[in-house]
Amino acid sequence: MYGMLGRMKAVPGKRDDLLALLLDSSGSMPGCLSYIVAKDAKDADAIWITEAWDSKDHHDASLKLPQVQAAIAKARPLIAGFDSSAETEPVGGIGLASAPKG
Amino acid sequence: MYGMLGRMKAVPGKRDDLLALLLDSSGSMPGCLSYIVAKDAKDADAIWITEAWDSKDHHDASLKLPQVQAAIAKARPLIAGFDSSAETEPVGGIGLASAPKG
Repeated sequence: MYGMLGRMKAVPGKRDDLLALLLDSSGSMPGCLSYIVAKDAKDADAIWITEAWDSKDHHDASLKLPQVQAAIAKARPLIAGFDSSAETEPVGGIGLASAPKG
Repeated sequence: MYGMLGRMKAVPGKRDDLLALLLDSSGSMPGCLSYIVAKDAKDADAIWITEAWDSKDHHDASLKLPQVQAAIAKARPLIAGFDSSAETEPVGGIGLASAPKG
């Protein structure tokens, strides 16, 4: 498995708009086992995204999906920056969806 | 929803043992929507845990479950420390399990 997690800062006041875009774009992504979008509890502009994929190839391919490309274009003006990111290798747990074929 | 994520450092050479304990203890936790355990891709001793719960109450109660208490006792000597933790409020995404009744 392949994973990533990271914190994104929205332009002040735009976190909810950015969250909506992130959720809209993540509907159907081949090989995606988990993609959870969360508000940071302490920073009103910060969003955490945690991801698990069956492979890095499927993660990389997701960035070329039409709905993801469209979301990236819409999201760009709402993003102030990124911090605290890490690559991971998920090993198991609760809530790893079955990967759709793709 | 309530979430947490954080990085734990294992005592050198003990990451796999610690991962096994974390996975064994997370089998049935009421209100747990996601609990994913991952190796840090760049640090051979580091583990990421990302969690989503239907409520903070269920998260807090999980720490008192017998299997979790037992795992904490066994894990303690394998843990060198914690860093990079955050509380979150998950808003949605892929891989949020249905919460078992509890």
